[in-house]
Amino acid sequence: MTEAEFLEALRALPLHPAARGLTDDAAVLPAGTTPATVLTSDLLVEGVHFLSDDPADTVAWKLVATNLSDLAAKGATPVGVLLGYPLGDDAWDRAFLAGLATALATFGCPLLGGDTVRQPAGSPRFLSLTAIGHSDAAPARNGARAGDALWVTGTIGDAGAGLAIARGADGPQALLDRYRRPTPRLAEGRALASVAHAMMDVSDGLLLDASRMAAASGIGIAIDLADVPRSADLVRYDGDSPAARLAAATAGDDYELLFALPPGVTPPVPATCVGRFHAEPGVTLTDDGTPVPLPARLGFEHQGG
Amino acid sequence: MTEAEFLEALRALPLHPAARGLTDDAAVLPAGTTPATVLTSDLLVEGVHFLSDDPADTVAWKLVATNLSDLAAKGATPVGVLLGYPLGDDAWDRAFLAGLATALATFGCPLLGGDTVRQPAGSPRFLSLTAIGHSDAAPARNGARAGDALWVTGTIGDAGAGLAIARGADGPQALLDRYRRPTPRLAEGRALASVAHAMMDVSDGLLLDASRMAAASGIGIAIDLADVPRSADLVRYDGDSPAARLAAATAGDDYELLFALPPGVTPPVPATCVGRFHAEPGVTLTDDGTPVPLPARLGFEHQGG
Repeated sequence: MTEAEFLEALRALPLHPAARGLTDDAAVLPAGTTPATVLTSDLLVEGVHFLSDDPADTVAWKLVATNLSDLAAKGATPVGVLLGYPLGDDAWDRAFLAGLATALATFGCPLLGGDTVRQPAGSPRFLSLTAIGHSDAAPARNGARAGDALWVTGTIGDAGAGLAIARGADGPQALLDRYRRPTPRLAEGRALASVAHAMMDVSDGLLLDASRMAAASGIGIAIDLADVPRSADLVRYDGDSPAARLAAATAGDDYELLFALPPGVTPPVPATCVGRFHAEPGVTLTDDGTPVPLPARLGFEHQGG
Repeated sequence: MTEAEFLEALRALPLHPAARGLTDDAAVLPAGTTPATVLTSDLLVEGVHFLSDDPADTVAWKLVATNLSDLAAKGATPVGVLLGYPLGDDAWDRAFLAGLATALATFGCPLLGGDTVRQPAGSPRFLSLTAIGHSDAAPARNGARAGDALWVTGTIGDAGAGLAIARGADGPQALLDRYRRPTPRLAEGRALASVAHAMMDVSDGLLLDASRMAAASGIGIAIDLADVPRSADLVRYDGDSPAARLAAATAGDDYELLFALPPGVTPPVPATCVGRFHAEPGVTLTDDGTPVPLPARLGFEHQGG
């Protein structure tokens, strides 16, 4: 089954209203009084989400950061995490623990519990984390309206270049760090939560995630690749060609926040406007005003065989 | 690293007070007002927690039931679950979904969200589930006091015999069902939560779990094997020898509730008294009054290589 087919089947099961139809990255349990409880659970699998030779401390960091990024997109403050961990070789386990300690301390997010198992020999590591947070105003993914502007925090494409560098390409440490040590935009998420019509994090690629926000909202989105913010490091590394701009917009793992604001509203945090929603469904792409055909792959999808 | 070493290392990390020092099976977040939020997260790994030829629908049932059993031990009512699922072959996925639907409907516990990945070829399945519940009174594992009686719901040892049957031994379907379709004691847990000094579920074996409750409480426990309740099916299957009684008390997967009550207090649900806590640490074993040496293995521990 593909992920889409499986999700469709899950939607036929008893579903909590807080699951928001499984169209979102986190569940939001309304409280009798604010704040609401936000829950998210993510898997990291060796060979899929991280490389076998990625240092274990950075894998721990990434596991925490990617889950907290889902909380950030709901404007939530982390309460704690539950860890599912396969005990393998000693050196890896100890380095993982060191990275976990650093991440939890950095994000002020304590451990709540979890489960361990013995890692079966010869199989890839499966790491799981569930994060819980509290939010006063949790924007959905599906609230964008025609006419809204699409904004993104930070810069896009750095982590994709970092992955290439982790795989052996020549490039600066700063880009490698963006791949291995993403920063969840927790403060920005809290500041944006009450003004954004819709918000999500960019985990699978800006074009793919923007197309998901538009589709969930029942509308379409026009994006100009020349507006997608790229870091000076990335421009030095990959140049400024149309292909390089498209590569950045379809690369994953950036963990920036993507959000819809009403026209004319300026975001309360540093961000860049990269597109505009329109009534007609679909994605329209330009590069500095020139129409660009949609690439076959808008980002990273976990549907391969 | 062993599980114990890993847990010890985790205790040095930023730990939420609700984690209760990682000595418990669930985290309990105190609310400003009752009820408290209870969180638990468990992994089921193919070849460790279930057999490769266990039917997929029963694996889904077991994944839900074992997590809800941790909620039951905290007197909690389930709110919902988050699933971590590796997409593998179509037939298994569809049977898993059918079992998930049955379990969620049976326990009145809707899906809140989760994550999917593509199952790497040739590696065992890793399933993860996080359950969230609400509880008005969540007993800890470490609250037993010297003089308290130790009680257990239902019968013990059935699931251990069921595992042997699943592996090819000859035996009745009822025992196999106890292994494949455990029932979380949710109603019993709610009824017991406000009277039990300590409570946990029996997942790894009655002797092992009772020894953990005693150790967490800083006291010891005396258990008489002849008092451990065994089903008529199990007695027919395995006989009534001292060895059979010991086998039942050290078998896992029963998911009954084990709880400490003050002397003289009768539990509000059907249960059997199997022992008594005493001030001196350690486990003392008798069989119908005759002292029995402690076996090397008190239950099922995930610390093998």
